[in-house]
Amino acid sequence: MSDSTLFSSSEVFEQLFETLDSEDSYESYAFSQPGSPPGTLIVDADSAQTSIFLIDYNDNDALGVILPEPEDCIPYLDSNSVSWLDVQGLGSEEVLQRLGKVFNLHPLLLEDVVNIPQRPKVEEYEQHLLIILRSATLVKGSKKFAIEQISLILGKNYLLTVQEDVKGDCFDLVRQRIHRDKGIIRQQGTDYLAYTLIDAVVDGFFPILEAYGEKLESLENKVVNNPDPKVLNKIHRIKRELLILRRALWPHRDAINSLIRDQQEFVSPATQVYLRDCYDHTVQLIDMVETYREIAHSLMEIYLSSMSNRTNEVMRLLTVISTIFIPLTFIVGVYGMNFDPNQPGNMPELAMPYGYVICWLVMLAISGGLLYYFAKKGWIGGIT
Amino acid sequence: MSDSTLFSSSEVFEQLFETLDSEDSYESYAFSQPGSPPGTLIVDADSAQTSIFLIDYNDNDALGVILPEPEDCIPYLDSNSVSWLDVQGLGSEEVLQRLGKVFNLHPLLLEDVVNIPQRPKVEEYEQHLLIILRSATLVKGSKKFAIEQISLILGKNYLLTVQEDVKGDCFDLVRQRIHRDKGIIRQQGTDYLAYTLIDAVVDGFFPILEAYGEKLESLENKVVNNPDPKVLNKIHRIKRELLILRRALWPHRDAINSLIRDQQEFVSPATQVYLRDCYDHTVQLIDMVETYREIAHSLMEIYLSSMSNRTNEVMRLLTVISTIFIPLTFIVGVYGMNFDPNQPGNMPELAMPYGYVICWLVMLAISGGLLYYFAKKGWIGGIT
Amino acid sequence: MSDSTLFSSSEVFEQLFETLDSEDSYESYAFSQPGSPPGTLIVDADSAQTSIFLIDYNDNDALGVILPEPEDCIPYLDSNSVSWLDVQGLGSEEVLQRLGKVFNLHPLLLEDVVNIPQRPKVEEYEQHLLIILRSATLVKGSKKFAIEQISLILGKNYLLTVQEDVKGDCFDLVRQRIHRDKGIIRQQGTDYLAYTLIDAVVDGFFPILEAYGEKLESLENKVVNNPDPKVLNKIHRIKRELLILRRALWPHRDAINSLIRDQQEFVSPATQVYLRDCYDHTVQLIDMVETYREIAHSLMEIYLSSMSNRTNEVMRLLTVISTIFIPLTFIVGVYGMNFDPNQPGNMPELAMPYGYVICWLVMLAISGGLLYYFAKKGWIGGIT
Amino acid sequence: MSDSTLFSSSEVFEQLFETLDSEDSYESYAFSQPGSPPGTLIVDADSAQTSIFLIDYNDNDALGVILPEPEDCIPYLDSNSVSWLDVQGLGSEEVLQRLGKVFNLHPLLLEDVVNIPQRPKVEEYEQHLLIILRSATLVKGSKKFAIEQISLILGKNYLLTVQEDVKGDCFDLVRQRIHRDKGIIRQQGTDYLAYTLIDAVVDGFFPILEAYGEKLESLENKVVNNPDPKVLNKIHRIKRELLILRRALWPHRDAINSLIRDQQEFVSPATQVYLRDCYDHTVQLIDMVETYREIAHSLMEIYLSSMSNRTNEVMRLLTVISTIFIPLTFIVGVYGMNFDPNQPGNMPELAMPYGYVICWLVMLAISGGLLYYFAKKGWIGGIT
Amino acid sequence: MSDSTLFSSSEVFEQLFETLDSEDSYESYAFSQPGSPPGTLIVDADSAQTSIFLIDYNDNDALGVILPEPEDCIPYLDSNSVSWLDVQGLGSEEVLQRLGKVFNLHPLLLEDVVNIPQRPKVEEYEQHLLIILRSATLVKGSKKFAIEQISLILGKNYLLTVQEDVKGDCFDLVRQRIHRDKGIIRQQGTDYLAYTLIDAVVDGFFPILEAYGEKLESLENKVVNNPDPKVLNKIHRIKRELLILRRALWPHRDAINSLIRDQQEFVSPATQVYLRDCYDHTVQLIDMVETYREIAHSLMEIYLSSMSNRTNEVMRLLTVISTIFIPLTFIVGVYGMNFDPNQPGNMPELAMPYGYVICWLVMLAISGGLLYYFAKKGWIGGIT
Repeated sequence: MSDSTLFSSSEVFEQLFETLDSEDSYESYAFSQPGSPPGTLIVDADSAQTSIFLIDYNDNDALGVILPEPEDCIPYLDSNSVSWLDVQGLGSEEVLQRLGKVFNLHPLLLEDVVNIPQRPKVEEYEQHLLIILRSATLVKGSKKFAIEQISLILGKNYLLTVQEDVKGDCFDLVRQRIHRDKGIIRQQGTDYLAYTLIDAVVDGFFPILEAYGEKLESLENKVVNNPDPKVLNKIHRIKRELLILRRALWPHRDAINSLIRDQQEFVSPATQVYLRDCYDHTVQLIDMVETYREIAHSLMEIYLSSMSNRTNEVMRLLTVISTIFIPLTFIVGVYGMNFDPNQPGNMPELAMPYGYVICWLVMLAISGGLLYYFAKKGWIGGIT
Repeated sequence: MSDSTLFSSSEVFEQLFETLDSEDSYESYAFSQPGSPPGTLIVDADSAQTSIFLIDYNDNDALGVILPEPEDCIPYLDSNSVSWLDVQGLGSEEVLQRLGKVFNLHPLLLEDVVNIPQRPKVEEYEQHLLIILRSATLVKGSKKFAIEQISLILGKNYLLTVQEDVKGDCFDLVRQRIHRDKGIIRQQGTDYLAYTLIDAVVDGFFPILEAYGEKLESLENKVVNNPDPKVLNKIHRIKRELLILRRALWPHRDAINSLIRDQQEFVSPATQVYLRDCYDHTVQLIDMVETYREIAHSLMEIYLSSMSNRTNEVMRLLTVISTIFIPLTFIVGVYGMNFDPNQPGNMPELAMPYGYVICWLVMLAISGGLLYYFAKKGWIGGIT
Repeated sequence: MSDSTLFSSSEVFEQLFETLDSEDSYESYAFSQPGSPPGTLIVDADSAQTSIFLIDYNDNDALGVILPEPEDCIPYLDSNSVSWLDVQGLGSEEVLQRLGKVFNLHPLLLEDVVNIPQRPKVEEYEQHLLIILRSATLVKGSKKFAIEQISLILGKNYLLTVQEDVKGDCFDLVRQRIHRDKGIIRQQGTDYLAYTLIDAVVDGFFPILEAYGEKLESLENKVVNNPDPKVLNKIHRIKRELLILRRALWPHRDAINSLIRDQQEFVSPATQVYLRDCYDHTVQLIDMVETYREIAHSLMEIYLSSMSNRTNEVMRLLTVISTIFIPLTFIVGVYGMNFDPNQPGNMPELAMPYGYVICWLVMLAISGGLLYYFAKKGWIGGIT
Repeated sequence: MSDSTLFSSSEVFEQLFETLDSEDSYESYAFSQPGSPPGTLIVDADSAQTSIFLIDYNDNDALGVILPEPEDCIPYLDSNSVSWLDVQGLGSEEVLQRLGKVFNLHPLLLEDVVNIPQRPKVEEYEQHLLIILRSATLVKGSKKFAIEQISLILGKNYLLTVQEDVKGDCFDLVRQRIHRDKGIIRQQGTDYLAYTLIDAVVDGFFPILEAYGEKLESLENKVVNNPDPKVLNKIHRIKRELLILRRALWPHRDAINSLIRDQQEFVSPATQVYLRDCYDHTVQLIDMVETYREIAHSLMEIYLSSMSNRTNEVMRLLTVISTIFIPLTFIVGVYGMNFDPNQPGNMPELAMPYGYVICWLVMLAISGGLLYYFAKKGWIGGIT
Repeated sequence: MSDSTLFSSSEVFEQLFETLDSEDSYESYAFSQPGSPPGTLIVDADSAQTSIFLIDYNDNDALGVILPEPEDCIPYLDSNSVSWLDVQGLGSEEVLQRLGKVFNLHPLLLEDVVNIPQRPKVEEYEQHLLIILRSATLVKGSKKFAIEQISLILGKNYLLTVQEDVKGDCFDLVRQRIHRDKGIIRQQGTDYLAYTLIDAVVDGFFPILEAYGEKLESLENKVVNNPDPKVLNKIHRIKRELLILRRALWPHRDAINSLIRDQQEFVSPATQVYLRDCYDHTVQLIDMVETYREIAHSLMEIYLSSMSNRTNEVMRLLTVISTIFIPLTFIVGVYGMNFDPNQPGNMPELAMPYGYVICWLVMLAISGGLLYYFAKKGWIGGIT
């Protein structure tokens, strides 16, 4: 089933930009067989194996380890420090189930975390808060981006993050800030860490939208000066990708807003001030997407206008040429007729002295008149 | 009246996909004659005969029987177990009326259940909760789907479901889960059973929308490369079918939401957590429908652009050919004139040595010049 | 003023369907001269004379009489039974004013009832509830429908209905139900009677919308196969008529909803359950109108696409014919030139043996090549 | 600045309908230089001089005088009667400032009254209620209308109205009703007078919208039968004028609604019942504007379709004529070639007996075949 | 990063109007590297150096100084007077950081002030209120406008404004009003000063929108009379610029509204009355932008219609000319054939006396008939 999931890995995603025919170009939702019990995990055989990274820090110290087994995290959880358990890859159902037991996760929560993609949302459970986000990261060395689901499970003194993909994420700078004790992150609790990660995810959309802005601009020139069907396809593709980004971004707004308004238990008021900033960024991103969508739509219209303009131009040339030469051709046809000149009234012009020259003069006059008429109508550029 | 009801049976529905001219292609609502008393049942003579299936289960045991008479269910209702009465087919008014008496159903409730289609909704009555859903199931071995109305009447210790159609439904997996004691369903009450069925109905829309995604993708290629009117018709049909799906899906959202928020009496808080999941799926489905609708609309636009592109291309060929040959034809016409060469000034070219060759050279020069002009304008592919 | 009122009588309405040029094709609102006092009645001289029908019934008995004078109803009002006073036709201002005095109607209420059309609405006055509805009834033996305003004035033990038109209404079945004691109507009070009439009015829209569904379907075929301007006009007319129906239907939803929510004084809770059903029907009707509007819009788009398709086809034929024959005509023109064959280099082909045959072969080769080219491009159906 | 104000006087407005190039065709708002203090009055030198009319009435008596100075009204204000001070023309800043002092008006209130146009709104100040309306009155003897701002300042026992323009207003009928003691106006207070004026302003839009309805209808015919660019311009102009009317009407709805809901202090409950009627009329007017806008949009679409239809028709004629004659012209060209008939194989047809007749027969057959083909395709009206 | 910020300085902005290809034509948001800590200031090396101006005034006195160091303002803050600290230019991070310390600003507040552009908003902090606005000022001597961010930090007895740009702002008139003691500004507190500045910013949009109104009007003529692709580009550019203005204006509405409703602590009720006026102006501005957008959209439609009109006209000319001359050319071709007149039946016309004249008469009759036909169809202007 998950092979029909768009963006399940960045390789698949790169294909999207190469070919329009890819089986994966529409984002679809993972769904279990209708009628199956809730909490059924759909683990894709192609998914990356699950690895678990633990970062445990307090004001004085920060520690990073790779955990071979999910249960290894238990000693860290009891300590007074902030424990950030980062689970990458959704390949091994067993590991995920064991994690669920360690943290006492509700089966529906686990289903939401594993059966990607879900809509970004915030859900409160008894012992933890589930925050589902979608992150977009630029693939290095290309203008392509990969979308993956990132789930944050926020408990009292731990933060569990589950990433769909093992490849690069947008959290490296956060890890460095913890490692190098940069900013105030080490003095704060798990909710501040959660904010930091949400902020990193949201800000990760900015460079991608910038790239679309640049693309649209370069298309704008082409559309006006050189409208060919390839440009049309590019605009269409951008529209579709912006549609995907929009669908990824919109629910973030509601999710972060509900964090600010409704979640007093897991999020402290001080952190909510920071989340307000995050909310503003989401609104800005949605603003940008909507603007780009409007511009893309406008480009479509201009394309159509340019095409109709071109057709008009082509028609005009054909009409000018035809209208000038068709009467002349008729005239020369007349004097090519073989009426017997010996019969009375038949083609006296042919026997006139300088008849040929007069004929040419008449034809020049006709074509000159027509050219003047067309020039006055503005159909011939640069004459009037 | 009901023969004008779309989707009243899957046979009729299959026709929809075959022909556009079918009398049944617009979904219409059943309505009694204006002015008739409320509770009037409109039973269609073509409807399938009504059959009643009972599944009665508790933690230890599960029993399935076919009931010949509606009153046969009474002994089961009194027991402590969960009784699921599944009524299939709306053909026999008398059986339905007797069922109404057994369960003490309000005449309006019975009217809503029988006079299909109704909008999906939740309505609370004194002794039971009415949940009306619309289910879409893929017809086996085809890409066609059938829509039928499923009504859930949820009482304290029984669940009555009424299906429009006797053919396959999406509940088989649920029946197996009860039979094989899979998951927690046997430990839960009627409200959990109702949730399970609602979930099965909602999830049944996913494979159908997937199919539309694939169809749209294959059309996308055709629209760009080979835009013919058949493609246009297909897009139009998909748009109309998505319209039907959208109308079926939207009211589910409100209905499930009202179950979560307002119905404390019949739905326990634990089940409401599960329904939240169901609600999310509905929102995802609506998201997908809206996205597909936007894509279909976009394909329409591309089709129009491609057509105008094609017209432009055709015009260009005509113009190139005409513009090159019309002046040449004029020239050869000139030298076909019969001016008497014996008169002074008349057609001296004809008597020139190599006049014919010079004439050809002039014509070649003219056509060469025009070809160069067109190539520079980019009207002739591959020359510039 | 009222001669510019659309639908003031069904004769006028029928005209709408015949001609687009009718002065009455846009629905307009009756309005008194700006600045005139409130309660000014605008009685149209062409309106039907006012007749008053009384139906008085209780559980045991039902009585129907025609009242010559409005004051004749007073004895019935005092009795314990339900009195339904049905006033048809708005022609006699004096009768209407006297009615106002009998029932102690507020001048603004009387203005709303008489100065048609008003938006459907519910307004509470001290002693009665005013319900304004718009009814659409199919004219017998035609696909045309007439819209008229029906006002319900609901008091404690009487119901006063005022119909714009004396011709057939949709209440006949209700009268029969009272007469024949069918259903529970005779056991219920005035609010139930009001519900029954509202239900009849709302259900009266269903057959009309069905008819539009059928019309749209037959147009769908024509638009694809045979798009001519008449089809375009029909679609436009349907769109406009759906616009009128939509404007008539939308306010009903709010009106009925306010009856369910806000009006405890005049409407009993038991009747409100029935009105909920009525509300559902209104929502279904609005759903249908919106769907038909979308389909009509879609047909417009297909019409445009078909037209551009046709133009493309015509252009293609012209281009194929021209492109094949223009070069050939040039060639035969060449050999019609009169260069003196006695001069050196002049037209040696003419004197060649079998020159004519060679010329034909060359021309056949050229046209064959062009035909192959066009066939490969798919411009000639059935060759490739 | 105010010379760029649209509609500042009806003369300017009339220009709008004459020419599209008028500098005043877009409605703009008056604005003081950014940074200037609040309460700055922008008095246009071209504005009409300010005149003050007083109508003072109670149940028994009604008096109308022209006041030379603003302070002359003070004696009337103290009396027990209703004092209506009608200020016309905004030309003299000094008079307006003195009025402000007499009635103790807030500087911002005065700014709103004088610096036209403002959005219609209701604002409560300590001692009075400010109601800003926009009135549209038909210019006599033309289909043009003028929009002016009318401000109502409602105090306890006086009503101050300020009209932008000295020319005719829509209050004449109200003045007559006071004068002739028609209706209940003389028994009521200032709030009822305010209602009467608001009602007159709102009802003044009806005849204007009627006129647009008639215009749209006459355009509808032209668009279908005779689509020329002038029609397009007319539709565009109507759309723009409806846009202006819509912008004038929408805020009235909110303003009147707030009068009904929020203003208990200055408006009595009895008057609020009347204002409900006013509110309904506003909703009807907005309904009409929206309907006309949709129809205008639809006409635009039909125009485009008709144009593409016409192009198609023209193309078809060209194609039919060209396709029939181009092959024939080729044939006659063939037999105009000068191949030497003495060489073997050269043009034996020319020497055949009846060759000319056969040639004609062949050409007739070809053209007959083509005509039959075109007739079958339906390209030639009335043959098939 | 900030070099990709649109409008960061007016020079950059002017470029936007010159070329469409500018890298800066889409407005983008400044964003820190995803994952960086909150409060990171992004200072652009190209930004203007930061200068600080202080205006300190009370009822009696007003003082204006340039502060070399941010800490120099401390003595003024303690006094009883209103202190307005105007910081211009965002070039020196260190100065901004020191300012933050002096006023005890939250790091997120400082980030919002420095990392431009932010969405206009109001945020309450413990000791001050942050108001972010976007100001649009006309560049002198041109029709171009520059957008810059202006942040107001409102404390109890001081107002700190931070302007993105050192060049001219819209506050000069306010400074003069303070200096010359004009109006009531010197008697009021910091909240009134803040209102005055907000008012100046909002009113600054009016002349810009006026300019767009004029531009649209001049384009309206061109579109109808002389639709060339340049006009299309201009409309497109206006649409895009209106989109930018709209995005700048919309959030102001919410921001000012929240000042009126929610901010009792920093804004006095008297000032809120003034802000209501400001709010009205914002609504008017948004109204204007929306109207202009609709008009621009309408112009686009008219452009397309005009183009299709022109194509139709061109086609018509071509068709008229071709249809008249093609049959004539065929006829003269016929009599140019070389059938041997000595064979029976071959071209007897050629040997007829006056055959040539008859031939001309026939051709004149044909062309006359066709001309009459076209004139009747209205294809030849001025004949019918």
